[in-house]
Amino acid sequence: MIRVTVWNEFLHERKDSDTKAVYPDGIHAVIASFLREAGHDVKTATLDMPEHGLTSEVLEKTDVLIWWGHAAHDKVSDAVVSRVKDRVFEGMGLIVLHSGHASKIFQTLMGTDTWNLRWYDNGGTYERIWVIDKSHRIAQGLDDCFIIPLDETYGERFGIPEPDQLVFITWFPGGEVLRSGCCFTRGAGKIFYFQPGHETFPIYYQSEVQTVIKNAVEWACPVSKDKVTYTTGQVEPMEKIDFGREGL
Amino acid sequence: MIRVTVWNEFLHERKDSDTKAVYPDGIHAVIASFLREAGHDVKTATLDMPEHGLTSEVLEKTDVLIWWGHAAHDKVSDAVVSRVKDRVFEGMGLIVLHSGHASKIFQTLMGTDTWNLRWYDNGGTYERIWVIDKSHRIAQGLDDCFIIPLDETYGERFGIPEPDQLVFITWFPGGEVLRSGCCFTRGAGKIFYFQPGHETFPIYYQSEVQTVIKNAVEWACPVSKDKVTYTTGQVEPMEKIDFGREGL
Amino acid sequence: MIRVTVWNEFLHERKDSDTKAVYPDGIHAVIASFLREAGHDVKTATLDMPEHGLTSEVLEKTDVLIWWGHAAHDKVSDAVVSRVKDRVFEGMGLIVLHSGHASKIFQTLMGTDTWNLRWYDNGGTYERIWVIDKSHRIAQGLDDCFIIPLDETYGERFGIPEPDQLVFITWFPGGEVLRSGCCFTRGAGKIFYFQPGHETFPIYYQSEVQTVIKNAVEWACPVSKDKVTYTTGQVEPMEKIDFGREGL
Amino acid sequence: MIRVTVWNEFLHERKDSDTKAVYPDGIHAVIASFLREAGHDVKTATLDMPEHGLTSEVLEKTDVLIWWGHAAHDKVSDAVVSRVKDRVFEGMGLIVLHSGHASKIFQTLMGTDTWNLRWYDNGGTYERIWVIDKSHRIAQGLDDCFIIPLDETYGERFGIPEPDQLVFITWFPGGEVLRSGCCFTRGAGKIFYFQPGHETFPIYYQSEVQTVIKNAVEWACPVSKDKVTYTTGQVEPMEKIDFGREGL
Repeated sequence: MIRVTVWNEFLHERKDSDTKAVYPDGIHAVIASFLREAGHDVKTATLDMPEHGLTSEVLEKTDVLIWWGHAAHDKVSDAVVSRVKDRVFEGMGLIVLHSGHASKIFQTLMGTDTWNLRWYDNGGTYERIWVIDKSHRIAQGLDDCFIIPLDETYGERFGIPEPDQLVFITWFPGGEVLRSGCCFTRGAGKIFYFQPGHETFPIYYQSEVQTVIKNAVEWACPVSKDKVTYTTGQVEPMEKIDFGREGL
Repeated sequence: MIRVTVWNEFLHERKDSDTKAVYPDGIHAVIASFLREAGHDVKTATLDMPEHGLTSEVLEKTDVLIWWGHAAHDKVSDAVVSRVKDRVFEGMGLIVLHSGHASKIFQTLMGTDTWNLRWYDNGGTYERIWVIDKSHRIAQGLDDCFIIPLDETYGERFGIPEPDQLVFITWFPGGEVLRSGCCFTRGAGKIFYFQPGHETFPIYYQSEVQTVIKNAVEWACPVSKDKVTYTTGQVEPMEKIDFGREGL
Repeated sequence: MIRVTVWNEFLHERKDSDTKAVYPDGIHAVIASFLREAGHDVKTATLDMPEHGLTSEVLEKTDVLIWWGHAAHDKVSDAVVSRVKDRVFEGMGLIVLHSGHASKIFQTLMGTDTWNLRWYDNGGTYERIWVIDKSHRIAQGLDDCFIIPLDETYGERFGIPEPDQLVFITWFPGGEVLRSGCCFTRGAGKIFYFQPGHETFPIYYQSEVQTVIKNAVEWACPVSKDKVTYTTGQVEPMEKIDFGREGL
Repeated sequence: MIRVTVWNEFLHERKDSDTKAVYPDGIHAVIASFLREAGHDVKTATLDMPEHGLTSEVLEKTDVLIWWGHAAHDKVSDAVVSRVKDRVFEGMGLIVLHSGHASKIFQTLMGTDTWNLRWYDNGGTYERIWVIDKSHRIAQGLDDCFIIPLDETYGERFGIPEPDQLVFITWFPGGEVLRSGCCFTRGAGKIFYFQPGHETFPIYYQSEVQTVIKNAVEWACPVSKDKVTYTTGQVEPMEKIDFGREGL
């Protein structure tokens, strides 16, 4: 049972009628729902909660954190970002969705201009998501490609570092492509960025999208719930250690 | 329950008294034993069996193949190598141990001069294996490093392509280092090379080594037992496909 | 002055009238021409020459080999493929164009089912090539993307290993994408695959395509003309070497 | 002629007599000297200069920045770090030396806990640096390995992300190894980390070390002196753009 926390800034769903119509209880509620059905221990947290709902206690008990943000990246406190980052280094998985590409937490973990990409939203368009690496845990259960009927367009050049593994590339009818499913490791934590998810379209209700996010939760979850630590700082030269084996 | 086939050329253990003393029933028997204890469905196969024990039927029912060879790489038939390679492309995992670095199957899957590395066996020396990526499935349950009391020395430059993930680096007292735990993907199959394992030393009885191999079996096993296939060859332009969704 | 050998199977240009119309002297002649204008020392070689024009003498004096093949991959002798492969390990660069993805030399260096990709040629279509890594030597002088007016369609899943660097992704109007500019290293040799180039279209006359190939020649060329060698086999433990420095 | 700026915090050389004895004019002076001899246009900058000598004007005219810092990472202003980072995104190369692994600029570009590694300085020890990728520009002119007579010990686990290319691994007699020559790309800028260089030893006078740094300057230098820019943000769908070619 994986302990997932789904974080959402939860602004569009309360202000914009078209988003409210699709996600009346918030995007986080929909994501939490299908992850609970998959058997996980799921909590949600939002921007307006104290410490954005991401206290040390919550993060300690989170194996995988899912992040959806868009309109208020700059409202997320630096202290919380720093805390999430430290927790990733200890092994917590992080799944960054859609416009989370421009979030503080993704930027600071990538070290690049991740906010940089082409985009336009001309009422939405369909997109085709190609599976590049069928051996990858995150691609399990998918066909060669799948289609999302309506989404915003994102396009290269996308300001990420070279991903450790590239799982998906999205094709857009307007002529753009995007490295849309990208894996990274930072410290002991695994990070997955997944592009689909504009708030005005019912993308998180779609079966293939749910499959990807469920797979990503399994992939990003640390094998052990123990924090990964490293011996650092000044140590004794190892040659002085008696490692107690015969024949040496 | 993962279906593992442990392949061993099984020559040293029958000819060389020092190897026979350590592995009276063969290296494959020891590896099979601890994998069975871990709950897997394990079979063994050896060079002297018809088709080296790697018939189509056996490979079809193998999720992960483990390879130990040294003295008789050139005795392995090209037909069997080709069959194993095709099965890797379909998703079968492959774990190549120690002097398997120079095997036909590893060479052909890497596409490089994998037989090229420094080596010497001056009666054996200890070695220290450092965990470079603690987040990796294969490193679970290990400390920062572990020591193998006696092994042959291997050293860089090792003729592999840049690994997809580098999990271990081995330090040798003679002054050498080796990228000793290396992950690759070929087709839909995952491949792991692990350096320790000279036949005259009881390396495969060591707890940490067994942990690594057990972890590698879990990592290399395809999620689904279905063969991974791809639509290739000439296809209809996708735009002509009616994918039956509204609004497109 | 880089010593380039442009290899072409040179079959379509002599048999097919539509290809002959575009490349009356062969694709290799056009490529050789713009590389000579760029100041390189360029030779050509074709399938019908003795040893396909790729004798040991020719390869010894080749810094970068360019490969165009399509209809007769199986006519290329294994001995020549092996010779080219060995030369790549020594440091010779290799640029594989278009349908060379299915050539013996590319397959054997990649170790995968590189012939696997989607494709169709419905009279040709335009394609858009996106620059993913603008910092890369091969992308110098290019805009964010460029268009090729008419080409055959290739699409994922493309059976290459994860590239060391991904420079281009191609977008096709039919709904496909392809990792179309991919860098690899094998031994000491650099390898670049570049997708555009169907023989019935004047693709190698296009300015951006020539820029890519010229850049790739610069990138793939070994810095030193000396063969890269490695000390391998059994060596003395380095600790026994007196390296003649004070204070140790 | 590459425009190099060598930055040094320049503290040890003025305070510590053993460092002063080795580098009376500062580490930057020695590095600048051998880079000038190599024909580059070299400037230096130090912590105590206004804006640490890294004004916008200086950075605009810098192709490659070299960074040496140790005792005063926290004295480097965030504004200067941010400016350097932005310049890297535009294409400026960055070479981070030795204890610069814990500098703000390296941390922020890597997005990880780069300060985390094992270390000790028990009067210094020799170390052996192995060339892992002989095809790499940075390894040109080096043998299989080289020895540095006296240096501080650094060891894994080193808190960097998986490098894009791993050029060197260092072996230490105390039993440690380190990924000691690591390449990364951030935005359009190339970054190289190189481990040797403790301030009390004459490491930057050593021929092989100078070779590595000179090679790294060539490697990290952007091909064009123009800033790399990308069209990002909200754009028109590309299909609406008339790209003015016939036959489309």
